[in-house]
Amino acid sequence: MIYLDHASATPVSDKVLRAMTPFMTDDFFNPSSAYLPAVRVRDAYENAKNSIANSIGAKGNDLVITSGATEANALAMTVVSKNGKILVLETEHASILENVKKYKFDIIKVDKNGLINLDDLKSKLSDEVELVSVSLANNELGTIQPLAEISRILKESRLDRLKRGITTQLLLHSDSSQGLALLELNIARLGVDLMTLNSAKICGPKGVGALYVGHDVRLTPLTSGGGQERGLRAGTENVAGVIGFATAIEAIRGHSSAARKKYTALVSILKKELEKAKIAPIFLGNAKHQLANFLPVSFPGLDAERLVFKLEEQEVYVSTGAACSASKGEPSHVLRAIGLTDTEIAGSLRLSLGVLNDEENVQQAGKIIRKVVDDEVRRIYG
Amino acid sequence: MIYLDHASATPVSDKVLRAMTPFMTDDFFNPSSAYLPAVRVRDAYENAKNSIANSIGAKGNDLVITSGATEANALAMTVVSKNGKILVLETEHASILENVKKYKFDIIKVDKNGLINLDDLKSKLSDEVELVSVSLANNELGTIQPLAEISRILKESRLDRLKRGITTQLLLHSDSSQGLALLELNIARLGVDLMTLNSAKICGPKGVGALYVGHDVRLTPLTSGGGQERGLRAGTENVAGVIGFATAIEAIRGHSSAARKKYTALVSILKKELEKAKIAPIFLGNAKHQLANFLPVSFPGLDAERLVFKLEEQEVYVSTGAACSASKGEPSHVLRAIGLTDTEIAGSLRLSLGVLNDEENVQQAGKIIRKVVDDEVRRIYG
Repeated sequence: MIYLDHASATPVSDKVLRAMTPFMTDDFFNPSSAYLPAVRVRDAYENAKNSIANSIGAKGNDLVITSGATEANALAMTVVSKNGKILVLETEHASILENVKKYKFDIIKVDKNGLINLDDLKSKLSDEVELVSVSLANNELGTIQPLAEISRILKESRLDRLKRGITTQLLLHSDSSQGLALLELNIARLGVDLMTLNSAKICGPKGVGALYVGHDVRLTPLTSGGGQERGLRAGTENVAGVIGFATAIEAIRGHSSAARKKYTALVSILKKELEKAKIAPIFLGNAKHQLANFLPVSFPGLDAERLVFKLEEQEVYVSTGAACSASKGEPSHVLRAIGLTDTEIAGSLRLSLGVLNDEENVQQAGKIIRKVVDDEVRRIYG
Repeated sequence: MIYLDHASATPVSDKVLRAMTPFMTDDFFNPSSAYLPAVRVRDAYENAKNSIANSIGAKGNDLVITSGATEANALAMTVVSKNGKILVLETEHASILENVKKYKFDIIKVDKNGLINLDDLKSKLSDEVELVSVSLANNELGTIQPLAEISRILKESRLDRLKRGITTQLLLHSDSSQGLALLELNIARLGVDLMTLNSAKICGPKGVGALYVGHDVRLTPLTSGGGQERGLRAGTENVAGVIGFATAIEAIRGHSSAARKKYTALVSILKKELEKAKIAPIFLGNAKHQLANFLPVSFPGLDAERLVFKLEEQEVYVSTGAACSASKGEPSHVLRAIGLTDTEIAGSLRLSLGVLNDEENVQQAGKIIRKVVDDEVRRIYG
């Protein structure tokens, strides 16, 4: 098989699995128990949290471990007061766009490449806005947002508020589920106050994520109980999951530059092959502001869902968009937001490379996709 | 080592680990993806949910998978309307007693064995009560609550309300985290509307749980997004975790009667040994209404925390109460609720047996505990 859907899920690496296993079997103890073997489990858990946090320039205590990115996103939004408002990008993942509906919110527009429209952000930064949520990189286009620039704008707005005697909070949250492996993240440099981290997209286990919470940021827990995670998220710790997450993050740390180079080359092979198709592909987004492993592409006039199934027959696995929205059969709100026509949206595939790809299988995938596209063109246009 | 703290954590069995592993490595796909290998993962996931649900006489679609019992308990409480009230038992786990603080609530008393005071329940069943939450078995005492009887009382109360034209809901929730392996549960027979299930206490992985949700029971999701779990709990499914949970539940299914017999015998060995100590132990609770694997015991006049550390030196691991409250160093609210004096509480251990125990190591543990108790008695009383 050739898997080109790493933005949707990634396999747990052997190394991660090996690190997790002892914490399910021999070292299964509850980290809150008082005896020595449990205290050792507690230490391993806290070390793992430190390791995850260090990768973004934070400390373990700044993290709240969650069951994944969705929960972390929902938890981040609890920072907003009763009358506060949230601004979110129109291309955000469903876990942002659905959770935000519980609050007062407004939508920030993007340009034709999916980049945030900073003027729109500025015009919507009214005094009631307490949180701005912009993902690090979009999950369908791979568009990387200028977080540091957004943070600078928020800082200016805070200063302006202060001058007028207004002291309401104005915080920046970013979901970094996509891009963690390809970008060096540093929360201080990016200027984010809250950041969602996801294990499942970087060859860690599913069901684990984290929320980085800056100092002086006050959340309301979604679940209460045993006081775990500094009272911000109760429940017996998923020790093996967190150990796996940490091992996955350690494996990518320091390798993002090499990974970018690798995927840029692989994407270029794929692009060249697709350009030979009987129908001119439209490569979506702007490669300059895009994750190196993403190749979203439209074949206008073709039916992408048919392409997915035709490719499946050849054991090439791609998606038409985010797995969670694709399963609902609705046209992508992301592709609509960047101004694609219905025909262009209907013909769009999301190809996302990762650990299961190399030059050979990407070359082969390119040929297979091209052939399937050509067959479809022939079938429709004769 | 001899582990006598199965109420706190259990090891993942080899069988469970073997069942989980492929869903982390080869079958890592996102169950919401459209291509065949992902559809197969979806099928396996739904089958696992069915298997978990079947063990309590329900269907997979009736379950909402969560990150554990705490989240399931918090989710259950969202059933209550803005003006509704929740009744909880005073001996409930922190995940109930802390989460309930977000609502209007009242506390139901227990008797000296930790059994629900049904008269107190009846007297507090005012018309605004919408939910009664009583755990299947207490996590410190192992006291098994008469759920079917409670359900009958709620039914009467509903009928009485109807006669008076009052149609507000009155539902029964039960956290079955403790006792799942030792009691045959059937939601129809028990008459519960919501039931929390926990993987971590039955040799399944940590970080997975489920909430059984009866028909016509309307919850408010804690997290929204991709629409997973019928829109009641968003986030990419923890496939391996759920497969592990199902495997763990299949392993205990049909064996509860044999397990009860086994643990009754083992507890009896332990009791006999402890009775020989220089200080008369008080066995807490009433064995007739207690999980067969629980032996909560007080040595009044001794310091249980010292006993835990002395036993640790001999590699015998026990706890003074629930791991999550023990770590906070507060006297047990459960032992206080059953009327123990401070001295009795201070001398209380929770011994809970499980898969890591057999006749030999229980016999040995009994001797070691007795010796440690005797040493302490000598140290204090000379």
